[in-house]
Amino acid sequence: MIRAKVVGAGGYGGVGITELLTQHPEAEVGALVDVENVGSAISDLYPHLKGFCDQTIISPDQVEGSFDVVFMATPDGVGMKLAPAELANGTKVIDYSGDFRFNTPESYAAYATRIGLNPEHANPQLLPQSVYGVAELHRVDINADKQIVGNPGCFAVSCILGLSPAASKQLVQTDSIICDCKTGVSGAGKTPHAVFHYPARYDHMNAYKLAGHQHVCEIERELGLQAGSELQITFTSQVVPLCRGIMSTLYGTLKEDLSEAEVLEIYQDAYANDAFVRVFNSVAAVGSTHVRGTNYCNLVVSVDERTRRLRIVSYIDNLVKGQAGSALQNMNLLFGLEETTGLNRPGMYP
Amino acid sequence: MIRAKVVGAGGYGGVGITELLTQHPEAEVGALVDVENVGSAISDLYPHLKGFCDQTIISPDQVEGSFDVVFMATPDGVGMKLAPAELANGTKVIDYSGDFRFNTPESYAAYATRIGLNPEHANPQLLPQSVYGVAELHRVDINADKQIVGNPGCFAVSCILGLSPAASKQLVQTDSIICDCKTGVSGAGKTPHAVFHYPARYDHMNAYKLAGHQHVCEIERELGLQAGSELQITFTSQVVPLCRGIMSTLYGTLKEDLSEAEVLEIYQDAYANDAFVRVFNSVAAVGSTHVRGTNYCNLVVSVDERTRRLRIVSYIDNLVKGQAGSALQNMNLLFGLEETTGLNRPGMYP
Amino acid sequence: MIRAKVVGAGGYGGVGITELLTQHPEAEVGALVDVENVGSAISDLYPHLKGFCDQTIISPDQVEGSFDVVFMATPDGVGMKLAPAELANGTKVIDYSGDFRFNTPESYAAYATRIGLNPEHANPQLLPQSVYGVAELHRVDINADKQIVGNPGCFAVSCILGLSPAASKQLVQTDSIICDCKTGVSGAGKTPHAVFHYPARYDHMNAYKLAGHQHVCEIERELGLQAGSELQITFTSQVVPLCRGIMSTLYGTLKEDLSEAEVLEIYQDAYANDAFVRVFNSVAAVGSTHVRGTNYCNLVVSVDERTRRLRIVSYIDNLVKGQAGSALQNMNLLFGLEETTGLNRPGMYP
Amino acid sequence: MIRAKVVGAGGYGGVGITELLTQHPEAEVGALVDVENVGSAISDLYPHLKGFCDQTIISPDQVEGSFDVVFMATPDGVGMKLAPAELANGTKVIDYSGDFRFNTPESYAAYATRIGLNPEHANPQLLPQSVYGVAELHRVDINADKQIVGNPGCFAVSCILGLSPAASKQLVQTDSIICDCKTGVSGAGKTPHAVFHYPARYDHMNAYKLAGHQHVCEIERELGLQAGSELQITFTSQVVPLCRGIMSTLYGTLKEDLSEAEVLEIYQDAYANDAFVRVFNSVAAVGSTHVRGTNYCNLVVSVDERTRRLRIVSYIDNLVKGQAGSALQNMNLLFGLEETTGLNRPGMYP
Repeated sequence: MIRAKVVGAGGYGGVGITELLTQHPEAEVGALVDVENVGSAISDLYPHLKGFCDQTIISPDQVEGSFDVVFMATPDGVGMKLAPAELANGTKVIDYSGDFRFNTPESYAAYATRIGLNPEHANPQLLPQSVYGVAELHRVDINADKQIVGNPGCFAVSCILGLSPAASKQLVQTDSIICDCKTGVSGAGKTPHAVFHYPARYDHMNAYKLAGHQHVCEIERELGLQAGSELQITFTSQVVPLCRGIMSTLYGTLKEDLSEAEVLEIYQDAYANDAFVRVFNSVAAVGSTHVRGTNYCNLVVSVDERTRRLRIVSYIDNLVKGQAGSALQNMNLLFGLEETTGLNRPGMYP
Repeated sequence: MIRAKVVGAGGYGGVGITELLTQHPEAEVGALVDVENVGSAISDLYPHLKGFCDQTIISPDQVEGSFDVVFMATPDGVGMKLAPAELANGTKVIDYSGDFRFNTPESYAAYATRIGLNPEHANPQLLPQSVYGVAELHRVDINADKQIVGNPGCFAVSCILGLSPAASKQLVQTDSIICDCKTGVSGAGKTPHAVFHYPARYDHMNAYKLAGHQHVCEIERELGLQAGSELQITFTSQVVPLCRGIMSTLYGTLKEDLSEAEVLEIYQDAYANDAFVRVFNSVAAVGSTHVRGTNYCNLVVSVDERTRRLRIVSYIDNLVKGQAGSALQNMNLLFGLEETTGLNRPGMYP
Repeated sequence: MIRAKVVGAGGYGGVGITELLTQHPEAEVGALVDVENVGSAISDLYPHLKGFCDQTIISPDQVEGSFDVVFMATPDGVGMKLAPAELANGTKVIDYSGDFRFNTPESYAAYATRIGLNPEHANPQLLPQSVYGVAELHRVDINADKQIVGNPGCFAVSCILGLSPAASKQLVQTDSIICDCKTGVSGAGKTPHAVFHYPARYDHMNAYKLAGHQHVCEIERELGLQAGSELQITFTSQVVPLCRGIMSTLYGTLKEDLSEAEVLEIYQDAYANDAFVRVFNSVAAVGSTHVRGTNYCNLVVSVDERTRRLRIVSYIDNLVKGQAGSALQNMNLLFGLEETTGLNRPGMYP
Repeated sequence: MIRAKVVGAGGYGGVGITELLTQHPEAEVGALVDVENVGSAISDLYPHLKGFCDQTIISPDQVEGSFDVVFMATPDGVGMKLAPAELANGTKVIDYSGDFRFNTPESYAAYATRIGLNPEHANPQLLPQSVYGVAELHRVDINADKQIVGNPGCFAVSCILGLSPAASKQLVQTDSIICDCKTGVSGAGKTPHAVFHYPARYDHMNAYKLAGHQHVCEIERELGLQAGSELQITFTSQVVPLCRGIMSTLYGTLKEDLSEAEVLEIYQDAYANDAFVRVFNSVAAVGSTHVRGTNYCNLVVSVDERTRRLRIVSYIDNLVKGQAGSALQNMNLLFGLEETTGLNRPGMYP
């Protein structure tokens, strides 16, 4: 059994991976670590786990024993400091934050600067070892020889999966890309805040962080890699009143006249071997509910022929494919397991 | 493998059991039958099933082959007509409606009359063979020798599990029982209706069927069995604006002064061997989300000592423990499997 | 014009009365006072007020000028300290908290003790002057000669209006009353908290404060006054996932066999002269949406003849009839205006 | 008093204007006409209207008396047939559908063809008399001499108000405009449908009508008029799970480098005299709740300088500014009243 430690266990990212681990046939929860709620059973904090995981949350200095993998369900700046000790113990690191999404000190600095963080990485020597955890693009690199995965941001997963075939096939003008993204409120995490207070959010939708969202860098980097040239996008983050789900509507001007059928085929080919990506045409009745609670990404392909614009609608569950599910998928790859292990479930409807 | 047929496959009850069967290690979907959507793949109707179950919905006269069990996810009056042919083929019947919840023509007639149906059962000779499918109370009777289970109503499950220990231990005055029940909107099923139209239901809660709900008969029968005497309850059904979940707040006047701690112990003892019932004290922070997507029933025990009144708050997912989950639990029992097979999952949060 | 000061202006209770005052033909906002957000325009905090009220929130020591009335939209313990200075300036006091809902030091102490507050009132000499602000019951006493109104609790309004005719006509056994109350989340106020965080509340309903809610005292007092004898109730507070609205389902065992038609007539007579109470029979399709944004209380009368139990379903908007609307209704009475002034609006649907 | 007739009174568009008329000081409901629910009091269908409007819904052939104005709250194809008789009686016509949004038979035919309707208008001779009812752009033309107003589509109002200054000032490249629009579910109207069934819509968001929405024509026409040249837009309609509200995120590539401050000033100037349009900078915390229940349009101005793209976020209540509120605003203009009469209210929060 793969023995896992979860750091930041009490947050949504922590409970998400804990839920998944209780259902994974070859992995188990070894320790739940956090700086809050120390001493509480996770199942007292999250009563749905009663009988599935009743371990007590411990503080970082209470951890004993060894682990095969650690999930750092922690904000920017934490994982980068804790990683060396983990690696020294032979523990692979899957980090949820931006700490290991960039491979060079320069690219990290550019990211950190853009979102107002210290541009110096605490352990820059680790960056070249890390791999970016969108398995559909980097599956080959996320393997048993690797020790660190920078798990992607939730908006980033939805946009990168949605636009990667268009970028790699050079379908769209690189300066024409717009990502109009809507997320459910769980994307804001567990900490209460005035703008996520239930009455303030009910019947309410709004755009936010118009000056720039922290996931833009990784989207531009990945799409640029696919396209073979640097590019910049316009990105709009918006909150809509549901709990789970991201719907990203992605626009780009086609370089050539392509019909919807042609683009659809390109997309279907691109994801033919990806268990968790489903491609639909523009009249399919799919939406966010159809991926809720699952690791799937549903992509709807549409071409507005009047304006020669490609439009992809990308649906994920922000807490699964956008976070804990991708993390588990990456763990499977790091340990040579079938990529879908423990993730093969349909969700429920309605 | 247990080969299952689902009749009424396109409704919420049908898709619920189909979801569960795709995850069950010893059962499989053999046929999906309905009178609507014939010819459509179930995964076109319900895209979350794509890759999990892509079978085509067939009409009753297209069914071929043999089945070990049929789930009749159909309204009152359908299962009673179809059952003889199923039984003749050696297929066990689990019926979601009121058709097989009553064991005698007389009790069926009383039920049917109360809710305005024809009091004559189409196949009264089958009634003595049927068993009422609240496994926690009738586990011994739901066994390999039985052919028919009358799966309980959703409100009924929540009320019966909530009050059964009080009834069997004679804790409350039998004329004092009030069941104040709130359900999410999915309890109304899949068919669109003006009162369940999204804008009409948003920010809206109301009581309905104040003159009498169809689940009252079975609650009174079961609690009467437990109490050893007939009883009548006051029952209020209410809809609140969420999708899944029932919260039943159950009241009864205590015969004797009992503390909350004493009643709590009685309840914990009563359900000590029931995998799917969790008992909490009155300060536990539990609610409907903590059973969503699962087969659990969470019970909160409270005693209002000022008025000597017992109050139990009972939480279930109306579509799982209140319908398809109980049906699968009953299937497990009918086939001698571990009761929890295919149902052992924590749900997800938030 | 009646010049009003609002203390606690930044909370939901404050913004609620401010909204109403901007639409009142004979009153105006004179000052907005709070200890938080001092220096901000109320319309920056609440952008819907832009152009209607752009006054700056000031701290208590910045207040200048005189006022005809002050709305104390403040928690328990604040209004009782501030009231003497207001009264000395000739300002009438309408207090939202429990501070002035009880007329004697003894009854206040009983209330305060029950909910864990200091039993000593800061200004007990004012208690005999205060009047309880359920206008439908105490209209005659809320007049130009009065200086202090204790505005009722939101649950209390719904329960008292729902049960007052039954109590005053001695319809039910006084030890049989159960109030099963469900509120939208706005009842918890504006301050963010883990249990009212949007993702934690979405698709979630639960009972809370099972050991006792602060509104029980005033309900028992008022119903006891109507019934002519002391009584005790069982009260259950529950939160359901909507923003505004209370649905209280109220039970009592009838002393005599009365039909629904007979009770309906008693209720219609009782409220024949009350502009804000509408009485419906048990098949009327009414619910919380139909009072949202208004000062109405909708009452549904039902008799369960099988168990001889009266059941009233009482609907209000917790922030209007349950708070700011009742406060404005009381202001109208205190200043000799038509009771409905500024409150005569239908709300909107859906 | 202006005596109004409402045709299609039972739908959301009908009840919306009825609500507003009950609060209008110089207009009144003269007749409520529909082909469904004939014989029912409007306040039985919509109990919140009880005491405000209890008129009975009558069929078209039961109408008697004369009216100053008729609100055609009817789908495409109805108003165009009924209009001549109304005009002959001296009744002004405000039509909610596409019937009178186009001024020439040719432009109507282009519209009708695009959305699959008969391209021949039933009364083309009336088209030149009609005026398009976005008062902010056509205020001068909506005057006492006019008889017909084509009330705008809900998405159209939000997009046109959001982009009109950019178009008229030639700020953006005309082939770069993208309208990414999200609506609450009430935009779908009152008729129940599988995709608007509460459980199907809960926690669900999706794009729809990707092949083309009926409001695109009028947006292109109006923006083209402002820009002085024809243009085509990419338009995406999406449904998010709330009741009321539209958030349209509007994109265009700036022709020249303009700062956010410069564009903000252009927008503020453009709407300086429009009572119902508020302009905010990109860090203002505004959203759909802040216009709910009101006739306001809130516009957030943002410039993404990295990609030289203008982004406007436009918020309206789809049933007020997007329908009945604009209709009443137009009525005020047609009768020479102050434009804001009966519409001057802040809404409520939360």
